[in-house]
Amino acid sequence: MGEKKEKEEMVVTAWKVSGEIDYNKLVEQFGTKHVTQDILDRMEKKAGFLHTQLRRRVFFSHRDIDWWLDTYDRGEPVGLYTGRGPSGPVHLGHLLPWFFTKHLQDVYDADLYFQMTDDEKFLLHDHLTLDETIGYTYDNALDLIAVGLDAEKTHIISDTDNIDHLYRIGLEVAKKVTYSTIKAVFGLNDSDNIGIIFYPAIQAVPCFIQSAREGRKVAVLIPAAIDQDPYWRMTRDVAERLGYYKPAQMHAKFLPGLGKGGKMSASQPETAIFTIDPPELAEEKIMGAFTGGQPTVREQREKGGNPEVCSIYAYYFFLLEEDDAKLVELENECRSGAMVCGDCKARLGKVVSSFLVDFQRKREKAKDRLEEYLIK
Amino acid sequence: MGEKKEKEEMVVTAWKVSGEIDYNKLVEQFGTKHVTQDILDRMEKKAGFLHTQLRRRVFFSHRDIDWWLDTYDRGEPVGLYTGRGPSGPVHLGHLLPWFFTKHLQDVYDADLYFQMTDDEKFLLHDHLTLDETIGYTYDNALDLIAVGLDAEKTHIISDTDNIDHLYRIGLEVAKKVTYSTIKAVFGLNDSDNIGIIFYPAIQAVPCFIQSAREGRKVAVLIPAAIDQDPYWRMTRDVAERLGYYKPAQMHAKFLPGLGKGGKMSASQPETAIFTIDPPELAEEKIMGAFTGGQPTVREQREKGGNPEVCSIYAYYFFLLEEDDAKLVELENECRSGAMVCGDCKARLGKVVSSFLVDFQRKREKAKDRLEEYLIK
Repeated sequence: MGEKKEKEEMVVTAWKVSGEIDYNKLVEQFGTKHVTQDILDRMEKKAGFLHTQLRRRVFFSHRDIDWWLDTYDRGEPVGLYTGRGPSGPVHLGHLLPWFFTKHLQDVYDADLYFQMTDDEKFLLHDHLTLDETIGYTYDNALDLIAVGLDAEKTHIISDTDNIDHLYRIGLEVAKKVTYSTIKAVFGLNDSDNIGIIFYPAIQAVPCFIQSAREGRKVAVLIPAAIDQDPYWRMTRDVAERLGYYKPAQMHAKFLPGLGKGGKMSASQPETAIFTIDPPELAEEKIMGAFTGGQPTVREQREKGGNPEVCSIYAYYFFLLEEDDAKLVELENECRSGAMVCGDCKARLGKVVSSFLVDFQRKREKAKDRLEEYLIK
Repeated sequence: MGEKKEKEEMVVTAWKVSGEIDYNKLVEQFGTKHVTQDILDRMEKKAGFLHTQLRRRVFFSHRDIDWWLDTYDRGEPVGLYTGRGPSGPVHLGHLLPWFFTKHLQDVYDADLYFQMTDDEKFLLHDHLTLDETIGYTYDNALDLIAVGLDAEKTHIISDTDNIDHLYRIGLEVAKKVTYSTIKAVFGLNDSDNIGIIFYPAIQAVPCFIQSAREGRKVAVLIPAAIDQDPYWRMTRDVAERLGYYKPAQMHAKFLPGLGKGGKMSASQPETAIFTIDPPELAEEKIMGAFTGGQPTVREQREKGGNPEVCSIYAYYFFLLEEDDAKLVELENECRSGAMVCGDCKARLGKVVSSFLVDFQRKREKAKDRLEEYLIK
């Protein structure tokens, strides 16, 4: 059942997301651009259809995507880069941009460098050992592979295990970035450890690694949630001085959690559906989720619910109902009161359950193919 | 000829040495200990003789050498670690602690990890590229090998090329060191680059690498010039929290330059004798050196010279006259005026020239053995 909630202050930094997210305000604060109809038209034309995450503006903001598309159209080399902070199991919110990344890989036939920031997560969290974060790297890689990426064109990087691929370029970046800059961009202070101060240089590297390996300038696009923008703001500042292109970016919204507002959180397991959750557990979590419905069934029938603030609706919208007509139907049923929350949840539970069964099968198969996807 | 000189302020940091060095004051400032007769006796007993650099107190200061010797005496594993900042060719001042390190390796049958800090030198110097500092790593390694170290027990590390050996432990160190600490220990500030802020974590690693590789706690001794002490002061603070021993240290004095006072400087090539200098060039440099002699030959004959401030005498004392009786004879001839500077220089010129001919032959041979000495 829905609850009235206090509006929390929005916080979106590289390392923290909380409060109610105002995406228009983020575009303004971060100085990014909205994804326009013109961009959607170009991407639709190339793909033959408009990907759900574009149609629904899940990827709502960008930097230089028009330039990246121009570069592609000129027949010049393009690449993709995204990543994951491996601090726990993967949830559906993490998968969201990965599905879109797979779409981009298919359409633009691009190599993807995928960074597992096991060093970052170790440096940030007192409770995590390096063995643990590296363990999550290879565990989370199974989820990535299950998304269906092309093994030939995907290069998974463990920062720690594959540092030999990263350190030289990382040093080049680090030499051009002062502590003052990092302090301002990431909100660090003097009592932070020297590892996390240096770390942004390592996160910059996959923007350039394909260019360095291929000995030519590759235009890189980073599809990722918008909280990671600070890293690439810094990277964009140094890119040209190092002889590389600035990376383009497309920024995704966050899949809302099943609890009250905000990002889905790995630290509150009941608010997230993890890819390794037993389907029954996922269904239970959904049955306990926060919705946009009325306090009682009678009120719901009379007044209808509000899909805009409903976490159940969000799952359909972001990920699990790709058919626009069916989504509208669902929305109408909710608003009119024809559908009550219990039924809606039970229905999503079935969808999620069947999604998980399928995904877990793919994830199991990925174990045999892990090696193929690791950077060589 | 000697010149009267203004006393410059002493500066000894990890990255800068200038002014007239007061070694007693350094022991006090850094909080290290003087090498005592008791320590000399123990080391003499073990070696069967007292190495010139101990006898002459070139290695004059230490941290925990007594503990390191105790550990060795108990039959527990000990190791050695020292290194080089590869920013140019090697001069005789650099060789000084390496000869002593070879002696320690021989006597204590210890593995030596030798770190080439090509990342540090790149991060510190605007004019140096990474290719250049890495180039110096392998060039300077020839000098190290020519010193006569045991290939089986010597492991040369290029920070950049061998970062895969260093990064994990470096992260463990970095997580325990704040920017405040680094700022205080190294005198860095907010406009320094994030690479050099992180770098001390990498320089700490060879203190622990042997323990990590062998899966047992190894007591490590670092023989090095005293300016490197700040690195290991920081390292000692974190060592036990990471499950390692604090590294012991023995600190060397600096071989004086041929110019006026201070450390021999690679940036003033006329003040240093490089191992790759043609012998004639070395002789020329010596003929132009600063001495402790009088302004004229007549005055020298009358008043005698002052070996204590003489760079020519220093070469004999530190490196090239191991026979104490002959050194005293030389000193007496100088003080009495029996020897004039020109003759003394010419004599040293011959000694240096023959040293270089021999060393350059060994250095040439080292090219075929380089691979054997690199860390695997």
